[in-house]
Amino acid sequence: MPHTPSLPRHPFDDDKLHEECGIFGVIGVADAAQFVALGLHALQHRGQEAGGIVTYDPAAGFSSARRFGYVRDNFTRADVMETLPGTLGIGHVRYSTSGSKGQTQIRDVQPLFAEFAMGGCAIAHNGNLTNAEQLKRELIERGSIFQSSSDTECIIHLMARSIQSNIPERMKDALRRVEGAFSVIAMTRSKLIGVRDPLGVRPLMLGRIGDGWVLASETCALDIIGAEFLREVEPGEMVIITANKGLESFYPFERVKPRFCIFEHVYFSRPDSVIGGKSVYETRRRIGVELAREAPVEADLVCPVPDSGTPAAIGYSQESGIPYAMGIIRNQYVGRTFIEPAEHIRNMGVRLKLNVNRALIRGKRIVLVDDSVVRGTTSRKIKEMILDAGAKEVHFRIASPPTMWPCFYGVDTPEKDKLLASTMSEPQMRDHLGVDSLSFVSLDGLYRACGEDAGRDNAAPQYCDACFSGDYPVRPVDRIARGFELKKSA
Amino acid sequence: MPHTPSLPRHPFDDDKLHEECGIFGVIGVADAAQFVALGLHALQHRGQEAGGIVTYDPAAGFSSARRFGYVRDNFTRADVMETLPGTLGIGHVRYSTSGSKGQTQIRDVQPLFAEFAMGGCAIAHNGNLTNAEQLKRELIERGSIFQSSSDTECIIHLMARSIQSNIPERMKDALRRVEGAFSVIAMTRSKLIGVRDPLGVRPLMLGRIGDGWVLASETCALDIIGAEFLREVEPGEMVIITANKGLESFYPFERVKPRFCIFEHVYFSRPDSVIGGKSVYETRRRIGVELAREAPVEADLVCPVPDSGTPAAIGYSQESGIPYAMGIIRNQYVGRTFIEPAEHIRNMGVRLKLNVNRALIRGKRIVLVDDSVVRGTTSRKIKEMILDAGAKEVHFRIASPPTMWPCFYGVDTPEKDKLLASTMSEPQMRDHLGVDSLSFVSLDGLYRACGEDAGRDNAAPQYCDACFSGDYPVRPVDRIARGFELKKSA
Amino acid sequence: MPHTPSLPRHPFDDDKLHEECGIFGVIGVADAAQFVALGLHALQHRGQEAGGIVTYDPAAGFSSARRFGYVRDNFTRADVMETLPGTLGIGHVRYSTSGSKGQTQIRDVQPLFAEFAMGGCAIAHNGNLTNAEQLKRELIERGSIFQSSSDTECIIHLMARSIQSNIPERMKDALRRVEGAFSVIAMTRSKLIGVRDPLGVRPLMLGRIGDGWVLASETCALDIIGAEFLREVEPGEMVIITANKGLESFYPFERVKPRFCIFEHVYFSRPDSVIGGKSVYETRRRIGVELAREAPVEADLVCPVPDSGTPAAIGYSQESGIPYAMGIIRNQYVGRTFIEPAEHIRNMGVRLKLNVNRALIRGKRIVLVDDSVVRGTTSRKIKEMILDAGAKEVHFRIASPPTMWPCFYGVDTPEKDKLLASTMSEPQMRDHLGVDSLSFVSLDGLYRACGEDAGRDNAAPQYCDACFSGDYPVRPVDRIARGFELKKSA
Amino acid sequence: MPHTPSLPRHPFDDDKLHEECGIFGVIGVADAAQFVALGLHALQHRGQEAGGIVTYDPAAGFSSARRFGYVRDNFTRADVMETLPGTLGIGHVRYSTSGSKGQTQIRDVQPLFAEFAMGGCAIAHNGNLTNAEQLKRELIERGSIFQSSSDTECIIHLMARSIQSNIPERMKDALRRVEGAFSVIAMTRSKLIGVRDPLGVRPLMLGRIGDGWVLASETCALDIIGAEFLREVEPGEMVIITANKGLESFYPFERVKPRFCIFEHVYFSRPDSVIGGKSVYETRRRIGVELAREAPVEADLVCPVPDSGTPAAIGYSQESGIPYAMGIIRNQYVGRTFIEPAEHIRNMGVRLKLNVNRALIRGKRIVLVDDSVVRGTTSRKIKEMILDAGAKEVHFRIASPPTMWPCFYGVDTPEKDKLLASTMSEPQMRDHLGVDSLSFVSLDGLYRACGEDAGRDNAAPQYCDACFSGDYPVRPVDRIARGFELKKSA
Repeated sequence: MPHTPSLPRHPFDDDKLHEECGIFGVIGVADAAQFVALGLHALQHRGQEAGGIVTYDPAAGFSSARRFGYVRDNFTRADVMETLPGTLGIGHVRYSTSGSKGQTQIRDVQPLFAEFAMGGCAIAHNGNLTNAEQLKRELIERGSIFQSSSDTECIIHLMARSIQSNIPERMKDALRRVEGAFSVIAMTRSKLIGVRDPLGVRPLMLGRIGDGWVLASETCALDIIGAEFLREVEPGEMVIITANKGLESFYPFERVKPRFCIFEHVYFSRPDSVIGGKSVYETRRRIGVELAREAPVEADLVCPVPDSGTPAAIGYSQESGIPYAMGIIRNQYVGRTFIEPAEHIRNMGVRLKLNVNRALIRGKRIVLVDDSVVRGTTSRKIKEMILDAGAKEVHFRIASPPTMWPCFYGVDTPEKDKLLASTMSEPQMRDHLGVDSLSFVSLDGLYRACGEDAGRDNAAPQYCDACFSGDYPVRPVDRIARGFELKKSA
Repeated sequence: MPHTPSLPRHPFDDDKLHEECGIFGVIGVADAAQFVALGLHALQHRGQEAGGIVTYDPAAGFSSARRFGYVRDNFTRADVMETLPGTLGIGHVRYSTSGSKGQTQIRDVQPLFAEFAMGGCAIAHNGNLTNAEQLKRELIERGSIFQSSSDTECIIHLMARSIQSNIPERMKDALRRVEGAFSVIAMTRSKLIGVRDPLGVRPLMLGRIGDGWVLASETCALDIIGAEFLREVEPGEMVIITANKGLESFYPFERVKPRFCIFEHVYFSRPDSVIGGKSVYETRRRIGVELAREAPVEADLVCPVPDSGTPAAIGYSQESGIPYAMGIIRNQYVGRTFIEPAEHIRNMGVRLKLNVNRALIRGKRIVLVDDSVVRGTTSRKIKEMILDAGAKEVHFRIASPPTMWPCFYGVDTPEKDKLLASTMSEPQMRDHLGVDSLSFVSLDGLYRACGEDAGRDNAAPQYCDACFSGDYPVRPVDRIARGFELKKSA
Repeated sequence: MPHTPSLPRHPFDDDKLHEECGIFGVIGVADAAQFVALGLHALQHRGQEAGGIVTYDPAAGFSSARRFGYVRDNFTRADVMETLPGTLGIGHVRYSTSGSKGQTQIRDVQPLFAEFAMGGCAIAHNGNLTNAEQLKRELIERGSIFQSSSDTECIIHLMARSIQSNIPERMKDALRRVEGAFSVIAMTRSKLIGVRDPLGVRPLMLGRIGDGWVLASETCALDIIGAEFLREVEPGEMVIITANKGLESFYPFERVKPRFCIFEHVYFSRPDSVIGGKSVYETRRRIGVELAREAPVEADLVCPVPDSGTPAAIGYSQESGIPYAMGIIRNQYVGRTFIEPAEHIRNMGVRLKLNVNRALIRGKRIVLVDDSVVRGTTSRKIKEMILDAGAKEVHFRIASPPTMWPCFYGVDTPEKDKLLASTMSEPQMRDHLGVDSLSFVSLDGLYRACGEDAGRDNAAPQYCDACFSGDYPVRPVDRIARGFELKKSA
Repeated sequence: MPHTPSLPRHPFDDDKLHEECGIFGVIGVADAAQFVALGLHALQHRGQEAGGIVTYDPAAGFSSARRFGYVRDNFTRADVMETLPGTLGIGHVRYSTSGSKGQTQIRDVQPLFAEFAMGGCAIAHNGNLTNAEQLKRELIERGSIFQSSSDTECIIHLMARSIQSNIPERMKDALRRVEGAFSVIAMTRSKLIGVRDPLGVRPLMLGRIGDGWVLASETCALDIIGAEFLREVEPGEMVIITANKGLESFYPFERVKPRFCIFEHVYFSRPDSVIGGKSVYETRRRIGVELAREAPVEADLVCPVPDSGTPAAIGYSQESGIPYAMGIIRNQYVGRTFIEPAEHIRNMGVRLKLNVNRALIRGKRIVLVDDSVVRGTTSRKIKEMILDAGAKEVHFRIASPPTMWPCFYGVDTPEKDKLLASTMSEPQMRDHLGVDSLSFVSLDGLYRACGEDAGRDNAAPQYCDACFSGDYPVRPVDRIARGFELKKSA
């Protein structure tokens, strides 16, 4: 049932994987909504399509505002923020969930809210449930009415039908029935709740601000409000925070070895965030170092594809001794698509956001560093622009292994047959992209950059790297039901 | 008479000088307006407040659309672009001109248009006329009615009263009466006209696209449409381009030694543009090299204030051997001002767009490189954030000399007494900013980085550097009439 | 959980009762949505706050658009209508239902839609369920999650839990559990369904257009699309219309004597509609005739309060022989509330929409005819304006009996103690309003004008007249639970 | 140079003549802008396309807001009204002036404002200058630059070039050069000025409110603010009102016999306005009386075409004794044009705003009364709807003589060959419209209804009736230059 919200067209590269959500919650501060707005702004890179905030105030009850578009455009307005009183609030930014294939509806925008017999509950979810379709069929047959196309709504309906007597217990009950990846921030009238699935695929950070507490997808969202970073919510942990009792910790799931998403290090997280005690920026720089060791080349300049290739390019330059240079400049005002003039402009789409520094590039041998290759469409155009500008050679270095498998844990990936590395060998890709050489960092090299000096433990991998390895730590049952084939060996 | 357009609040730093305009024109292409839109998008860094496009088509006559806000938001819409038919068009983006002290009116947005007895003429102006107030008084007394508060309208009224018989001659006539800095792109029903003032203070580039011709403030606007860069319009030159006769060149002014604005190299122009045959990026990198020579320091990391300090930081790192690192990360989604929560967040304004890479910075001695210091307010906050993050030392290096004098040639500068360097010595500034050391590149160092190996020719300076030197190449008569005092020696 | 849609302020009199909804459905025509839009436009007087349309097309599935504001502003736009393909569609306009006390949410706007195990169903409801609160509590306890504050959602949840195997049977099942007034139009993928509660409190009309069928609240909505009026859906009847089988009729409820809302004749319905075979205009004119007989007076002119008093004023004039005149003129451009100037304007609110024809009124004895008196606030101001204009006498004649009781069957009425007639005797009201005489038509007179020549059958009244008599045909159990006291004798 | 404001589509009949402007001014009250807004709201029937207000306050100077759309939508907003401080203000609503043939520009919206050497002046004009094109050519040749396509701008430029030393004298000077119809309200920093052309074609009313003064097109605009009506500004009079000296009166033009526009009585003015001491409603009712005398017919009901035919229909009914009835009902929510469904609806355009009262009309002989016939397109459709509804006979009675000539004095009329009465005889029109009989009131009958008991004085007509008679009191020189042919005898 397609509604037609006037969506901001997503301005960014469709040749990247996209993180689907950022979540944030705070308790014990005046003007909770304003902290949530700031936190979501810092997490905007995790989802630009829409955002929402729910707060609770004893006098006003639960308040909610959900909007399409950037946080800065919606949650900076006094007329919106005024409607969100309270000292407890949670928020969500989304890219586009597994649900609606067409346009997102405002009712799909989180936090979702439900009124139970024992009171209201709002929930914000980062990740994806791999058995949501199965659950939904079962729930509808029992008389549940779904309002959204979001997998998250399954959690709500499971909670509504739970025989437990309070909301935290009902949430535990519900989360034991779901499979997949989930970092969840929820709230009741008095509690801020954070939960991470047993594998801990998606991040969830815990911080303090004054007497209050904060939960957020990344540490950069703690920084923006001046909160102190305490620790990560652990895989499989549920924290329940109240004004009077402070933080209580529970482990409602059977314990398994955690497998955090390695792509958070490669691309999703902001470079100023800290994961596992390490600067994301530094990890990316070290991927560049690994790349320079694994795939050295004679060249004049190392240039990043801005902005995501920048840290790895710096690392590559430092390790190789080849000078680093901004050979490609990014237009800060990237936006909608312009109307193409009748006289065709080569690679117009890319030119709207990137331009080659022609006077610098001319006659040079260039090492071009990007974070990943997904469809390969943009990579090809960038290479063309650089050659048009007179570069002598282009050597393409990719700061991640070939992306060959779709993600079912909360990342928007193309189908397998749209992934360049899934359909071509490396030499074929090199020829297809038309570059002089092409190298990806090895999976072991990537693990080393992430601090695993011995590389990947193939018997019990330290990370979820399904997009590179096809090794899915949670069986994607819905997708298998719809025809997806797992790797033979898996 | 204040109108109240709903202005997009300017999202960027108020602690920078702001270029006031970018201009673009094209003749001899299908869908001229779409090329103009793309060109203005590439010039958006020169002015974000508003933009306009005028085109001419024999059937539709002159068409015009002028809007507040970004090019990408206005001139990407089919319903707007459809109203701009023709093979000849010009456009303008503006920051805010010398005119209206309060809010800009849509009628102040250029290109301005006038119907003369011999036909229509549209005009787009980058620069500022230093005798506009004087001229305006004179024109009103003779019965001219001013519609805008723009200095550019003086040119239109002078043309309307000229005794010359065609528009190009009337334009020459008018431009001989005005003083100051002007790069002008104008159009009649059949002509694209470009003019640069005798000193050539503001840039103006000439290019070809197919059989058509392009004029633009910077080469990056030629790149975006795939046009070939031919040469700069020379200081004091007027070019008249028609479909059948091609380009004709005139020199209507008395010749003087050119003095191009040196701040275009420091900050205004885009790093991927080429000025005087040199990459702007490369010039900025070389300023960093000069700085490292003039003001070396022992440190662990060289970090730019993003994005404008980046090229100089790279140069400083390369010359000094101190590793380059992204110690400060810029939020790409910078926008309006958020509502400040009741519990104050230190340096909240800066945090909205910048965050320190805490894990990287902790315990390090940092060389922080920025392009300029204007009021000093932001510099101080950035330094505080870096110290909060645990840096051991902060050494501030500025890629331009102290900014001590206001610009009257088309740049939005604070009054003299608001310029930090105008009220304090360098040691005072160091203490005020609270950094361990502070150095500005020397004026000679800056000239060397711009390719003047012998530095500044004090007898006949090669550039307009009034903002640093107080040496104004055109006497600012309007401002003197309102009390501005020139440098004693000048 | 208050959202903040930007509501069009309701421009009309708050001193009237307000019909809460108009509904419309069509099957078997190309572009069903466009017929629905036209039908809703004709029913706009029944609800101005918001409107919605749902259609079904085999290729596109169910489509829906729900918007705040007038039909003419939303459902005339190609970009909206394009999203509503299909040959089957239903729609709804609403004033404000019994639900949200504060601002309406877009999720409260009908038609509501639900996906059941056996397919989707959309539902549009005119009326009000008197046991909705009771049902809602029961459903929540069983695990239903309510999304809206609308009583209509109870029907949906009851259907979801029904043990019947198809949608029509589930709807019958659900409607047997609800109490109150309901005219419902619903649709599945292939069926258009119309139902009217056993008493038939709200209207529902049936028409044909070409090979298609139409259901609508009033005949004026058939006229606008050129449909032929067949008959009313009978009280207690359910019609199911499919493309191949045409219309089938069912009577799922126990039969009772119908009691149609008499206020539809007095004010709600449009004067060009036909109810019970009689022109609404003509019934109103006849109320005026009854009034002239029951409450004659010596006067110079009979003037209506426009527009709702007009037919009765014509009848009064014809029966009394006193000339009819437009003594009060209505401003067609009525809208939001203007800011009141510092120098107070007497009765400013009323002046924005009404003005006295001063030259006509001066020195005259005026019979002022209005349809009803609710709070009496506007009546008083109109009388003042007429006296200010120099009228000699004002005789107020009301084309309905005193409104003394709130309606619980789908009409927005003030609480009992805000109804003027509930707190004052007729002489007190006359003095309060400050008129020379005041008369209401008698309840028997009203029945006579409606065609009941013998007046009201007090043993078994022919109409629902609870607002006048306090005789509620369905016990308002939710309201009694919240403290409402029935008339002692009832 | 077409701009593209997002225009509200005019919702009303294109088969009417349209008054082009309403004007209002006030001096000596707090919050002048709010009075102006209310006055313009009362004058909205004279122009719905756009409106503007200018005020003056010693501290803020001149302020202005000009907007497309209804007064109620723009000048009720606090953010707009706040920008309009002062105790002196004027305003204007416009339909569309003689200027731009395509879309109106915001710069065409009045009041116009100009800064002269001796101070600012704002001007609002109702009427049309018949020599504006001639004047504009002359002014452009002397170096004036026109910003708008409005004829009113000529007055401004003539004032700018006047050799008189103050604004009132310059205005007299300018108005002596223009020809045509003009009622003008202007303001300086301290003066409210009203002028009416020597013939007094357009109305201008003078009132008092407290210690302040009001000028307005019609008395209904005095009523809305509770102002007292003093008198009309006389034809050829200029009034200058200041806070300290009060009202001064001047007669700057050569005196001629006034000829007020008779169509103001027929249609333009609001029925609750008073012109020449007579109620406009009463004049219209008397036209109906004249019609009944001149063109009696046997019939069952007299029905107006709402709303403009209503007063004449009442008069016709009263004189003929045939009962008056609302046979056609107007939808109050008339707006934009709906998308026409694939299955064509007969007369869809008319059905959107009018519906026949079918149950009333069936089998009846109807006298249908309308105010005028312009193109005849709507008349024909209304007749068809009435016959479709089953009327036995339709007798069309028109409350004005045949409209045969375009107006050049400020009314939007079709070209002569589009006027039905200009191309057909009365019997031809009757057959074309397909009615049983057709009669127009005679020109003498119209004059009698306007109080001229002896009818029209053909030697020296009392009114401007050019649209009926072709007798143009001011020679339309611009239109003659573009080929318009005067009536032979004229």
